[in-house]
Amino acid sequence: MKISIERSALFRAASQAQSVVERRNTIPILANVLIEAEGDAVRFRATDLDVEVVDTAPAQVERAGATTVAATLLHEIVRKLPEGALVTLAHDGASERLLIEAGRSSFSLATLPREDFPVMASSEYESEFAIQAAVLRRLFDKSRFAISTEETRYYLNGVYLHVSDADGGKVLRAVATDGHRLARVDADLPSGAANMPGVIVPRKTVLELRKLLEDDEAEIRVSVSETKVRFAMPAITLTSKVIDGTFPDYSRVIPQGNPRRLEVDAAEFARAVDRVATVSSERARAVKLQLEEDRMVLSVNAPDSGAAEEELAVAYGDERLEIGFNAKYLLEIVAQVDRENAVFFFNSASDPALMREGNDASAIYVVMPMRV
Amino acid sequence: MKISIERSALFRAASQAQSVVERRNTIPILANVLIEAEGDAVRFRATDLDVEVVDTAPAQVERAGATTVAATLLHEIVRKLPEGALVTLAHDGASERLLIEAGRSSFSLATLPREDFPVMASSEYESEFAIQAAVLRRLFDKSRFAISTEETRYYLNGVYLHVSDADGGKVLRAVATDGHRLARVDADLPSGAANMPGVIVPRKTVLELRKLLEDDEAEIRVSVSETKVRFAMPAITLTSKVIDGTFPDYSRVIPQGNPRRLEVDAAEFARAVDRVATVSSERARAVKLQLEEDRMVLSVNAPDSGAAEEELAVAYGDERLEIGFNAKYLLEIVAQVDRENAVFFFNSASDPALMREGNDASAIYVVMPMRV
Repeated sequence: MKISIERSALFRAASQAQSVVERRNTIPILANVLIEAEGDAVRFRATDLDVEVVDTAPAQVERAGATTVAATLLHEIVRKLPEGALVTLAHDGASERLLIEAGRSSFSLATLPREDFPVMASSEYESEFAIQAAVLRRLFDKSRFAISTEETRYYLNGVYLHVSDADGGKVLRAVATDGHRLARVDADLPSGAANMPGVIVPRKTVLELRKLLEDDEAEIRVSVSETKVRFAMPAITLTSKVIDGTFPDYSRVIPQGNPRRLEVDAAEFARAVDRVATVSSERARAVKLQLEEDRMVLSVNAPDSGAAEEELAVAYGDERLEIGFNAKYLLEIVAQVDRENAVFFFNSASDPALMREGNDASAIYVVMPMRV
Repeated sequence: MKISIERSALFRAASQAQSVVERRNTIPILANVLIEAEGDAVRFRATDLDVEVVDTAPAQVERAGATTVAATLLHEIVRKLPEGALVTLAHDGASERLLIEAGRSSFSLATLPREDFPVMASSEYESEFAIQAAVLRRLFDKSRFAISTEETRYYLNGVYLHVSDADGGKVLRAVATDGHRLARVDADLPSGAANMPGVIVPRKTVLELRKLLEDDEAEIRVSVSETKVRFAMPAITLTSKVIDGTFPDYSRVIPQGNPRRLEVDAAEFARAVDRVATVSSERARAVKLQLEEDRMVLSVNAPDSGAAEEELAVAYGDERLEIGFNAKYLLEIVAQVDRENAVFFFNSASDPALMREGNDASAIYVVMPMRV
């Protein structure tokens, strides 16, 4: 193999590869990226056996071929090369080294045989559809904070992407929950997605995918089977196993009849919650909201260190209510509000609360109260 | 006590206080800042028993008095208050709480009695002089990287500030070393400093002092005794114990006759060292410099992961030399070069090397070679 490639293209591929490989793994080849040169392109493939990312970059291929090198090391080297550099990668089977040259720098890296690299088996996908990057990003961005980290509830360790019924007809829906809070985000159903099986997309896949969705206008081709999901752009393909489990029936958790409506400036509310929570150093910091007509008092009481209280002008017209929440959970759902006010619906101090953005029902959030 | 103070002044004082207190300490009051209000000012005092910082800020004192509260908590609260806020601090002996109010936020913090707060005993200082902040900053900035972290060699855990003879007469000199590298930085001797005792200023004091030296033009009054050093500005005073030990005779370590002169662009050299060092993941990464006429080849060989090599155009006219250094040490001394080229003087592959900035002998650096 012998190729010349622009530093920027190589850097993008190496960054993605090093982020997919597991830092602590006992199988040496899983730390490596597979580099395959053919035609006028070079393919960089990295995997942790659950997620696989393949990046194809244009390159001048003088001699086709393939090898594998440590992804983190390659990334570090390319990061330190000057911008605009043209980089040569050369590998001949005999030396078992990959030679990297750029300007007056040269590196020779240990390789492992391409034959040992585990390439993810290709799948039959039951459904395939196209979706705008901005739409897919919104689905995952607004839901991922609620993904559970409890390994025993492995079926909650991802975002449940599925087709569901909503008021206006069928939607593509992302749901995540850890039992304390839940996020449910809808998008218009893309053409061709109607019969896709519901899949639980693992946390790591969500994070890796997120990096590929920066360009609003890009079109992502999504392929879904019972066991795998694939997100493809012209230059990059991410393939992932999905979580083998059943996502619980989340609809039971979403309150239907909460009558008490509170509307509050999301940013002001977030700053107030953050401030009053300062006095408590405990991990599960309970903040108490006291609601009365057009007025909210937030308070935290931490016997050891002190107490804090803050008043906010809000829109609230129902009867007096005192309800407590984990400050971190409140902050996380309020952070999802992009433009409008946060609108909460409460029932009693012991019932879950519902939040949405203004009148937009396409993203709703549920948070369990705490006794205060 | 009852005072009103600008948020920005309170924030500055609280930041300094929380940085001085030890996070992990078993004496509760040492986590606190002593707040004393009197006249038209309020004094914030924090200490870890070795360093004490006192910040005086203008305030409207409605009722004089004093108390102590957790420095970190105070800092966190003030950080989250809106810019431009006017903050009220009130304490009455009966409630044993400090009430903090700003706008619609209020906090009530646990206090500890002011009587329990350890105020550093005042000293007789043998010498007192004034020095520009920019000059003092240079002395410590260019030397502190070489401070030893080995606790057994406690007398190297600081910067040795003392009066010494140089070519042009007496100078104020800062020296730090960990046995592997050494920095020696000189400044004009300030009037009144001639008879100051040499003192070893501890690492933490150097770090805390550094934060007070941002304003180039500020004049710092320095007071020195055998056991303490004090740095005073109009609003802030930092007092510190000095390390009770004897700084070794560093002059023996500074090579006098190294004949082989190498001149190299400091930034280019640093980038090259950083790049070739990438291939080795070991902590003590040895980089080999091969010098021949006007040419340097840098190389690193790490049998497990690979090898790297880079060539640089330099000014060198002596005979061929191969010498190895710890890459981190090389990078740290080269980072001290502000404007001009780095100029190295070598003797043999086993002798320490000397570095300075261009022809400026007021800051010199020594680094031990490694066998490569």
